[in-house]
Amino acid sequence: MEAFALKHALEAVRDTQPLVHSITNYVTVNDCANVLLASGASPIMSDEPEDVTDITALCQALVINIGTLNKESIKAMYAAGGVSAKLGHPIVLDPVGAGASRLRTETAAGLLDRLPIAVVRGNMSEIKALALGASATRGVDVCPDDLVTPDNLYDSAAFACDFAKKSRGMVAITGAIDIVADETQAFALHNGDPIMGKITGTGCMLSCLCAAYLAAKPSLDALLAATAHMAIAGEVARRRMEGQDGTASFRTYLIDAVSLMTGDMMEERVRLERIR
Amino acid sequence: MEAFALKHALEAVRDTQPLVHSITNYVTVNDCANVLLASGASPIMSDEPEDVTDITALCQALVINIGTLNKESIKAMYAAGGVSAKLGHPIVLDPVGAGASRLRTETAAGLLDRLPIAVVRGNMSEIKALALGASATRGVDVCPDDLVTPDNLYDSAAFACDFAKKSRGMVAITGAIDIVADETQAFALHNGDPIMGKITGTGCMLSCLCAAYLAAKPSLDALLAATAHMAIAGEVARRRMEGQDGTASFRTYLIDAVSLMTGDMMEERVRLERIR
Amino acid sequence: MEAFALKHALEAVRDTQPLVHSITNYVTVNDCANVLLASGASPIMSDEPEDVTDITALCQALVINIGTLNKESIKAMYAAGGVSAKLGHPIVLDPVGAGASRLRTETAAGLLDRLPIAVVRGNMSEIKALALGASATRGVDVCPDDLVTPDNLYDSAAFACDFAKKSRGMVAITGAIDIVADETQAFALHNGDPIMGKITGTGCMLSCLCAAYLAAKPSLDALLAATAHMAIAGEVARRRMEGQDGTASFRTYLIDAVSLMTGDMMEERVRLERIR
Repeated sequence: MEAFALKHALEAVRDTQPLVHSITNYVTVNDCANVLLASGASPIMSDEPEDVTDITALCQALVINIGTLNKESIKAMYAAGGVSAKLGHPIVLDPVGAGASRLRTETAAGLLDRLPIAVVRGNMSEIKALALGASATRGVDVCPDDLVTPDNLYDSAAFACDFAKKSRGMVAITGAIDIVADETQAFALHNGDPIMGKITGTGCMLSCLCAAYLAAKPSLDALLAATAHMAIAGEVARRRMEGQDGTASFRTYLIDAVSLMTGDMMEERVRLERIR
Repeated sequence: MEAFALKHALEAVRDTQPLVHSITNYVTVNDCANVLLASGASPIMSDEPEDVTDITALCQALVINIGTLNKESIKAMYAAGGVSAKLGHPIVLDPVGAGASRLRTETAAGLLDRLPIAVVRGNMSEIKALALGASATRGVDVCPDDLVTPDNLYDSAAFACDFAKKSRGMVAITGAIDIVADETQAFALHNGDPIMGKITGTGCMLSCLCAAYLAAKPSLDALLAATAHMAIAGEVARRRMEGQDGTASFRTYLIDAVSLMTGDMMEERVRLERIR
Repeated sequence: MEAFALKHALEAVRDTQPLVHSITNYVTVNDCANVLLASGASPIMSDEPEDVTDITALCQALVINIGTLNKESIKAMYAAGGVSAKLGHPIVLDPVGAGASRLRTETAAGLLDRLPIAVVRGNMSEIKALALGASATRGVDVCPDDLVTPDNLYDSAAFACDFAKKSRGMVAITGAIDIVADETQAFALHNGDPIMGKITGTGCMLSCLCAAYLAAKPSLDALLAATAHMAIAGEVARRRMEGQDGTASFRTYLIDAVSLMTGDMMEERVRLERIR
């Protein structure tokens, strides 16, 4: 993974302006739409089973986020996923809260089993719930026991590659250290800032960015670039904070930074380590 | 159309503080509520078929936005529309993504056919989908072939008046140049800024403003004033950007500018051209 | 009520980081999630009847907000409420628009009747609709006749205590003057700023804060502290506004101020009056 691949991946999004269909939760959906636009892509949201097949067919990628799933939207996820699969569109699955409820765990597992998911993007607790069928979770937050740290980095890499292999795709496990892997390679990304966990939606937004990047260029490079784009935007936004700026200003600065990100900034700031 | 009519229309919204019922998408709903409040109106959202008839009866206008329509919300649209029609409330239809799916095109066409829609507010691809029964669209964005330009301005005016006549109402076709028309007159509004397309919701927010303005004074003047209010706010917000400000700061500045807009600012800045 | 109780209540939220389950409207849900994070708590949203029982069981408090209720979410409210009740979790009810429609009034009344609601948080029109079975409302806004003023403060206190007694819980009636009461005591909080009514969601956000504070320490002190936290944040945010800042900047500053609030700031600024 060379730094210039990040730059090219970003330019591919800006050049191709992929249209991304998101079936997502209503908590962070506005941020998801705005971050897609900020990245150079275009968003469209639709979760009615009768609507999604037409919508997906117009798009170049699909995000399935189970953050506020319901029975109708689950039908829509399968319907859209089926069309996307036929059309060869990359599908990103964000298993929000997998492990926190039976319905979430089973839905995420079912989608992963029945659809050709290109990328699963979640925190370690969610990915473990999918990999192991059970997990301790703290709602939509990662469980403290599941944090990726320098001490468990190589074990985490092995876990990520194994999960990628089983899921026949790629995985982005995000947290203080992000792990991005396919079945043979794994990278640790040491960018980002803890304040990203103090606003809602950084994970959901990243899942959308992953879809935009994959639509432009379906590759591990593109997934790494999407992950770096969000993490570096988080650092830039954190550095901009001053005086009375709190978490809401950070959120504004984060999306600002996504919109103003350049390939050169990504090359200069990325701290990427091959760990497998 | 004299400039002072814009000023009076704005003052009518601020004086009457109309309550606007929106059945709208969950992507931009928060921005819609905040922009209604910023304009001087008050928002209420409800999309449960059993709830909407009571809610609409309390209000002075109704917005129907199909951005994330589903089968229950479609029922609610007809139920609320029926009550609004009986009460003589202006109804604004925002046919988000008409042309992008069969369900959206048919729902928008059905609503337009069966309800006395006062204003249809959309981009040119959406309005063409309604006018012609089919269209090429790019999801919720306008198709490049459908852009209103100085070269096709008079054809666009004729199309808009024709559409207004068939729909027995008014139309606001927004884009780089906005066209506002009833069946006999058409105006081009040369305000706004391209960055408005880099955030989600500027169209949805405008549809809500249209309803607030129509509630205060049902007239083509009011529709022009609503459209000018949003477009000029976009210019003011764009001019305020500096340094590390990106698209998220622009969105904050846009709603700020809606809230701080004065009739004098609208008069000074408006660039309105009668084209029919 | 001593000022240091406010400080301790805030610290209890920051120390225990309660996980709060919200079944809430899609208009202000993002602000609700962000304000919970800003206060030190963690949010999880879920409104699918099959999902909510597992989710609630993981949490320490439940918010039920009927702002965009529908038939499925009403089922979820009862299902989650039943589990929360068994587990002894505090439940906060936000009866958005009670009085504005039959469905809202009946749903709020039914929830209050069948669930052990710890706190009802609403404006005076909504609380009167619940107390008296009918009310004049202005949608989701308070009716002018229902405003709490210095002239009717003692009557309002008596009403609040009476309502608290009947509802076997506590009540926070918010407006220009906030009334916080249980069945024997009532306090008036003279903090806040009128601009808080010019953005959507200040009430919904406060309901979430109430749940976070109650989860950390179920007491009238905690409810007062939550109410003071939001009202004082409103003052701080208002004071920060300058130049071209309008309502959207105020909203950013409000959540910023929630995130940066300290116990000392609360102690210094609170203007609390025992009125019963």
